[in-house]
Amino acid sequence: MASADGDSGETRLLLATQAEVVAGIDRLFDQLLSVPADPRERLYQAMRHAAIAGGKRLRPLLVRAAGDLFHVDHRVSLRVGAAVEAMHVYSLIHDDLPCMDDDDIRRGKPTVHKAYDEATAVLAGDSLHALAFEWLCDPATSADPFVRSELCCELARAAGPAGMAGGQMMDLAAETSDFDLRTVTRLQQLKTGALIAFSVEAGAILARIPPEGRTPLRGYARDIGLAFQIADDIMDVEGDEALAGKALHKDDAAGKATFVTLMGLERAREQATALVDQAIAHLSGYGEEAALLRAIARYVVERDH
Amino acid sequence: MASADGDSGETRLLLATQAEVVAGIDRLFDQLLSVPADPRERLYQAMRHAAIAGGKRLRPLLVRAAGDLFHVDHRVSLRVGAAVEAMHVYSLIHDDLPCMDDDDIRRGKPTVHKAYDEATAVLAGDSLHALAFEWLCDPATSADPFVRSELCCELARAAGPAGMAGGQMMDLAAETSDFDLRTVTRLQQLKTGALIAFSVEAGAILARIPPEGRTPLRGYARDIGLAFQIADDIMDVEGDEALAGKALHKDDAAGKATFVTLMGLERAREQATALVDQAIAHLSGYGEEAALLRAIARYVVERDH
Repeated sequence: MASADGDSGETRLLLATQAEVVAGIDRLFDQLLSVPADPRERLYQAMRHAAIAGGKRLRPLLVRAAGDLFHVDHRVSLRVGAAVEAMHVYSLIHDDLPCMDDDDIRRGKPTVHKAYDEATAVLAGDSLHALAFEWLCDPATSADPFVRSELCCELARAAGPAGMAGGQMMDLAAETSDFDLRTVTRLQQLKTGALIAFSVEAGAILARIPPEGRTPLRGYARDIGLAFQIADDIMDVEGDEALAGKALHKDDAAGKATFVTLMGLERAREQATALVDQAIAHLSGYGEEAALLRAIARYVVERDH
Repeated sequence: MASADGDSGETRLLLATQAEVVAGIDRLFDQLLSVPADPRERLYQAMRHAAIAGGKRLRPLLVRAAGDLFHVDHRVSLRVGAAVEAMHVYSLIHDDLPCMDDDDIRRGKPTVHKAYDEATAVLAGDSLHALAFEWLCDPATSADPFVRSELCCELARAAGPAGMAGGQMMDLAAETSDFDLRTVTRLQQLKTGALIAFSVEAGAILARIPPEGRTPLRGYARDIGLAFQIADDIMDVEGDEALAGKALHKDDAAGKATFVTLMGLERAREQATALVDQAIAHLSGYGEEAALLRAIARYVVERDH
């Protein structure tokens, strides 16, 4: 899944861990979303359609990598990863709706409102949204209620109007507004950055690292979040729809300001690389235990989908 | 707002407390949903449109009444009431969408997708959903992280596919299925019962009453939840649209099985009254401190909207 860098140890570590996380998330979703024998069957099938077997699982991978810094049990970081991924999948289902981005294909499959119907898609998204919190605040996530409550609080902030949902609202406004670089940066920090930041911070929360001890991780998350979005904007221009598993070239068609339209391809590429270097520099206080976080930072801009 | 029973002390208590809760919830929403000066302004305006100045605030009233049993600070029960009400309002916004129940009027005003647009309605609902959790797990709700995490967990269960969202899915299926009384009862326990049950139980959670001490309250909540829905079905047949502030006579038009179509008006009315008596009987272990809960139980079937 990662590209370039050939067979360096870091790439091998990334590929192996990503494969483990991808399989673990699918297994967990399969258990947590088992289909009831009642009229809600269609709702669960729709959630499974969107949640299982798809995506790079970047957010669960970040929970795992950040948790590894503090020796968090892999089963615990996987569980929190499933909660973050459920939140991410819900946002994809709603963003794909006809009244939003109106997309037919996601992760190489029909979107939920295409495979099922719009009402089921709204409710499948709403259900995954609630389940993310249910899974987080279950004692199976942490025996420590302080940890559970802090996870819920941070996830709620990352998902709400000051996070993902607010960012999507700005994204809709972007089609009819003339946003400058500062506003596009803020839009992306909300729309994708907040959940990426939560994923990284969750590893530290699980280990009860106090807020002041999380500063380097916050810097890392902010930088890779922006680098990720710049790379996404570049892929929207240059990418291969078959590999991406979704429609591309949409921003340009909509006349929307993106990092690429505002900076040009070359400067956008340079900026993404600079952000990755800066993200890695934030980890200078850590040794080998941060190898995975470093590898993810590079992967974020080198991936081909 | 309450009807019948004339000027008994119980009705006076209900009216006075409801007025206090209604004003308190509006005040809290006004503070918690203050509009930012950025492109998310429309999102916040849409949330305010749906959340402020509307509704009977039954759920916050239940949090307050149950909290009163255990001397919970009124500011705290109001805050938790705002979180439950946010969850309720989000569900109304999404249920009203064209792809769901397709309603134009709610609480006497245009629905959010009519006053704004569909995308904004989806995101306003999503935002209130996340905010409910954000407000609950804030230390301002309780200094005790165990209380915060339990509130989040119970609210997530009440909102998700095994609660409100699952019930709405069953409700959509009801239009094309031939549900029997058992299935309609289960549908309503999920769709409206779960959040009503949470509202009552939250009062006990705030006072750290352990689950085994909450049995009478659970019985009370189950009974008034069903009575509330039976009364709603009766109003859908007999009610006044102007008073209800929403479209009525929709179930019949859709050929949907309801308590009224399955039991007939007379038996439905008897059943609602029997449930209220049973709900009040669950409170026999409590004295004067449960007067408000008793008054709410009667109000639930006697209200005219």
